[in-house]
Amino acid sequence: MKEIKLGLIGAGTVGGGVVKMMYNSADFFKKLGLSVVLKRIADKDASRLAGLPTGNAIISSNAGDILDDKDIDVVIELVGGKTFAKDLILRALEKGKHVITANKALIAEYGPAVFELAEKKNVSVNFEASVGGGMPVIKSIREALAANRIFSVKTIINGTCNYILTQMSEKGLDFDTALEKAQKNGYAEADPALDIGGGDSGHKVAIMASLIHGGYVPFSSVSIEGITEITKDDIDFAKELGYCIKLLGIIRKGEDDDLVDVRVHPAMLHKSHVLASVSGAFNAVLMEGDAVGPILLYGKGAGEMPTASAVMSDIIDVARTITGGAQKRIPMDYYRLDNKLEVKPMDSVSMRYYLCFRVLDKPKVLASIAAILGEYRISIASVLQKEGGAENCVPVIIITHKAVEKNMQAALKEIEKMDFIKKKTRLIRIAGQAY
Amino acid sequence: MKEIKLGLIGAGTVGGGVVKMMYNSADFFKKLGLSVVLKRIADKDASRLAGLPTGNAIISSNAGDILDDKDIDVVIELVGGKTFAKDLILRALEKGKHVITANKALIAEYGPAVFELAEKKNVSVNFEASVGGGMPVIKSIREALAANRIFSVKTIINGTCNYILTQMSEKGLDFDTALEKAQKNGYAEADPALDIGGGDSGHKVAIMASLIHGGYVPFSSVSIEGITEITKDDIDFAKELGYCIKLLGIIRKGEDDDLVDVRVHPAMLHKSHVLASVSGAFNAVLMEGDAVGPILLYGKGAGEMPTASAVMSDIIDVARTITGGAQKRIPMDYYRLDNKLEVKPMDSVSMRYYLCFRVLDKPKVLASIAAILGEYRISIASVLQKEGGAENCVPVIIITHKAVEKNMQAALKEIEKMDFIKKKTRLIRIAGQAY
Repeated sequence: MKEIKLGLIGAGTVGGGVVKMMYNSADFFKKLGLSVVLKRIADKDASRLAGLPTGNAIISSNAGDILDDKDIDVVIELVGGKTFAKDLILRALEKGKHVITANKALIAEYGPAVFELAEKKNVSVNFEASVGGGMPVIKSIREALAANRIFSVKTIINGTCNYILTQMSEKGLDFDTALEKAQKNGYAEADPALDIGGGDSGHKVAIMASLIHGGYVPFSSVSIEGITEITKDDIDFAKELGYCIKLLGIIRKGEDDDLVDVRVHPAMLHKSHVLASVSGAFNAVLMEGDAVGPILLYGKGAGEMPTASAVMSDIIDVARTITGGAQKRIPMDYYRLDNKLEVKPMDSVSMRYYLCFRVLDKPKVLASIAAILGEYRISIASVLQKEGGAENCVPVIIITHKAVEKNMQAALKEIEKMDFIKKKTRLIRIAGQAY
Repeated sequence: MKEIKLGLIGAGTVGGGVVKMMYNSADFFKKLGLSVVLKRIADKDASRLAGLPTGNAIISSNAGDILDDKDIDVVIELVGGKTFAKDLILRALEKGKHVITANKALIAEYGPAVFELAEKKNVSVNFEASVGGGMPVIKSIREALAANRIFSVKTIINGTCNYILTQMSEKGLDFDTALEKAQKNGYAEADPALDIGGGDSGHKVAIMASLIHGGYVPFSSVSIEGITEITKDDIDFAKELGYCIKLLGIIRKGEDDDLVDVRVHPAMLHKSHVLASVSGAFNAVLMEGDAVGPILLYGKGAGEMPTASAVMSDIIDVARTITGGAQKRIPMDYYRLDNKLEVKPMDSVSMRYYLCFRVLDKPKVLASIAAILGEYRISIASVLQKEGGAENCVPVIIITHKAVEKNMQAALKEIEKMDFIKKKTRLIRIAGQAY
């Protein structure tokens, strides 16, 4: 049996988890009918390797040592980032090595270059760990559900945001305090911008949309809104109406749609929605396929060991393929710059809306708002007027029926000009009740 | 590219779904880089094929025509049952054909004979559709989570039972009425014994336990109790205590356990448990791995198209393997009669219990019950005494702390002898709160 030799670059959180899982793994691989060894580990900061069970692996501070080792069959890139990591991966592919990566930003933004080279060199790039940690999101899309037309995905795919929103909802914290708590408890990076700004969810959703719809959905075409504007009031009012607020990734394409709707934004979910109960750092992916119906994956979408579990899943897959005598298993030739999928512009998306106006407490305000909404063919489903707060400023909450985003933004612009508007109006989209 | 030729035997519900999904699938397979055709379909009842889009497939009423066709690479057995189906599968393997089946009873009871022959002939037997319909249960266990030690599984894996229990809980129906409704709505077979008796769940749990723990867990060693004894009172009392009742499949093996705990029985789940919200005909599998943590799959575990989706997933897998130049991908050599895993006897399992005694409304009854429980080292967590019903017969509900099954059964036997016991005592095990 061929012994498959791995080289791991990057021994940070996830890399450390992989080293732990590879330690003493010979018996385990033998049971699977495979022979796999971690031959080399490289990290520019050798101190990160000190506490890890590196066994017989050759340690180096130079990633080039792994690329130059002709024995290495598979390079595992866990460096992160988009410059050095991209260079590493391209060099590894150029040398005919298979690649495993957890790098969602790289796959979402530079996937076409990576896959093009991989196809040319007839090796595989595996990226299960890039989306949803230990949940088999990529495997389910590319394998288990591959015969389905997946017309809808709704996903909570960033643990940091979900932790913050859950803390705000359950503990009554404001955004800044919840963010601080997330950082203190290791659920948020020191620089949380990519998480709370929605970019991380956007990367993952772009990858999923590409795989599901068989083309390249550029990250830059995904409409992204993060959670930084969400206030405690939003959450409290939502709760009062029977909703919770989640950062949602959405991918939709009906049978007759030409464009694929791909976006990330905060959304109100009715508390009976299956995703409403996904709390804390947990993630979930709800997919609807024409044959399989609704299917949900739920689990830890990040963290050392769940993400290492996904990398191990890729290692096993690659090892099985090579051991079976093949080079590759799943072609990625559709993930190309000249096979871009056009994304539905946010302007033309239609949803229900939650609006919270902060208005002067005087007669005819509601009538004026309703009139402007009406002009833009936005019809009101329900109204909740709260008793006023400070400065004679009362919140008026309106839930609309389905409306087109463009009309909604135009109506809001007009309403915002009115003299009775005291503060910026809050708009949160409402996700459909269907699975 | 090699054209892979399929032969389908059995065009019932699931077979019909596969025929529909295979129809016009050439473009789809081309996109996946594969060439797959449904060359032959056999069903002894030709009328079942009349309404199906069989395209260019050669129709026959004789399964032997498929086995005898040297061109056929893969035989899809969707006949069901354990005699004819077993014979078909063994003959197909003998002829060096790959096999795909949805037959859980066959895999659970005759898996060793099937896999032994498959290993000998170096072909694969694929059975994703045997457990959990369109949910990738087998794929997750054998591939995505293969590097995890899965120490706990809790699963709602029979849609018929879950539909009946949900109807009883939500609509207040009694068991017989709920069963009738399930049959009327196509959620239960005319002969529902295998479903409501727990056997179907037992087959699925035996297969999962075998794959997870790398040996053969014989179906006959799984302790199985169905839902036929569950009454409306049980469900109402459970609800009052904050619980629901589900038919649960359980697989547990701690790091220090020699034996694997595999069983199926009704269980009370606290309403905050993630499985408590799985209602109607939906299924769910909650697995806990040492690396991945808790992970949940949720979806439709049965029915024409969800199960056909799983068969398609197997077709794609086999086609990818063959097209890549390999014969097999995942060895099943551990699933052998001489590699049986010993199952923990039900007697030695320890859980919390719900007990509902029907007693004469007279003094000292509770004291007597408590005394006997105490003799068997069963300690009481809470008591709920209900106002009496007819015939001076009152329900006394006791929730115990963890107790060993053997002690519980012995204590109950003794209590049942007491003259104040008016009806048979109800015992329902309580599933732990952990994920």
